Amino acid sequence: MNPIDIINYLPKLGLVVIVMGLVECTRQGLGYLQRKRAKQVIRHVIFFPDKKIACKNFFDEIQGCSMVSCDFSHTKTGFKHLLSYLKSAKKSIDIAVYCISCFEIADVVLQRHKVGVRVRVITDLSMEAAFGSQNHRFMKDGIRVQTNKPPFLMHHKFVIIDDEVLCFGSFNWTSQAVTGNNESVVVTNDRWVVEPFCAEFKKLWLETKPDN
Amino acid sequence: MNPIDIINYLPKLGLVVIVMGLVECTRQGLGYLQRKRAKQVIRHVIFFPDKKIACKNFFDEIQGCSMVSCDFSHTKTGFKHLLSYLKSAKKSIDIAVYCISCFEIADVVLQRHKVGVRVRVITDLSMEAAFGSQNHRFMKDGIRVQTNKPPFLMHHKFVIIDDEVLCFGSFNWTSQAVTGNNESVVVTNDRWVVEPFCAEFKKLWLETKPDN
Repeated sequence: MNPIDIINYLPKLGLVVIVMGLVECTRQGLGYLQRKRAKQVIRHVIFFPDKKIACKNFFDEIQGCSMVSCDFSHTKTGFKHLLSYLKSAKKSIDIAVYCISCFEIADVVLQRHKVGVRVRVITDLSMEAAFGSQNHRFMKDGIRVQTNKPPFLMHHKFVIIDDEVLCFGSFNWTSQAVTGNNESVVVTNDRWVVEPFCAEFKKLWLETKPDN
Repeated sequence: MNPIDIINYLPKLGLVVIVMGLVECTRQGLGYLQRKRAKQVIRHVIFFPDKKIACKNFFDEIQGCSMVSCDFSHTKTGFKHLLSYLKSAKKSIDIAVYCISCFEIADVVLQRHKVGVRVRVITDLSMEAAFGSQNHRFMKDGIRVQTNKPPFLMHHKFVIIDDEVLCFGSFNWTSQAVTGNNESVVVTNDRWVVEPFCAEFKKLWLETKPDN
């Protein structure tokens, strides 16, 4: 190859470099858009008991808490986090929890039901008549509640929010579980764990239908 | 730049291309080795009850099962999977389970303890004297068992194997949980969930020390 040939070849080489540059820029740009559009990853481990009870005024009232030395927690407790996930429901709340007696959790579920979120509840039959059971409140407000058949237990403790976010662990929805017991709740939208739980709920919902 | 200058410049350009090629090859090679060395990802969701009990002969005996029409399961049940994870322990088994009465799980834990795996057990105090409790077997064999203080419950249901694999969910270690109840166990080595549970066990182990 003589020097003149090399000079003739340079524009082609430049073109190749420009095309490669454009391809890389497009690739990076698409990756950025994909990451931007991707839903927020939720991976949250909550342990109970909460050391303190969250201050109702601080979190729930517009004017906040005016107590100079308030004994309640002004940082978000595990319980407050759990309620936040339930409050975030836009379309559906599917609950399979052995025992539901905590009225504060039931309040949030009822509030979401009132604004049109589809709520389905499965609890254990033996816990339906337990002290403080919230099943009757759910049913009174038109939420469909189903229970398993004895002698075995519907011992699950999970809720699926909008078919996307799963909260599960050892935690029954009782007040004792919030401020007394050692408990865990894992919250995630990782599909590998959410999808099997969605399928399990679907199966249980069919199994516990009253006419079954 | 005249043609002669360009010709003089070519070897330098070639050198840059060769160096870039070598860098990319090294990068890809290191990535490959890293992937090869990376531990197997464990993400397993197990639901109970098992529809059938696993055939003891088929899984545990060298000659397998010789029954022509065996009623037990010859495919791995959820329970068999759970036992496999426990059997895989090389260094440590840290158990925080409300109630342990299933002797088959206890057998596996005792077997691992016998071959030098460090076993630590925390259960709920109220379940220590429950029917079929395996705590006394553990203690008899030199495994340290600790319990919480009433009135609240040590309601966790998790085990950490070799500080790497976590099994957790609604599942107490009872026979009824295997073949009767609706239960879940999630098994994973995802660090975002394993690490908080390791810290929780450490905290509980200190809290439940007899001299505390």
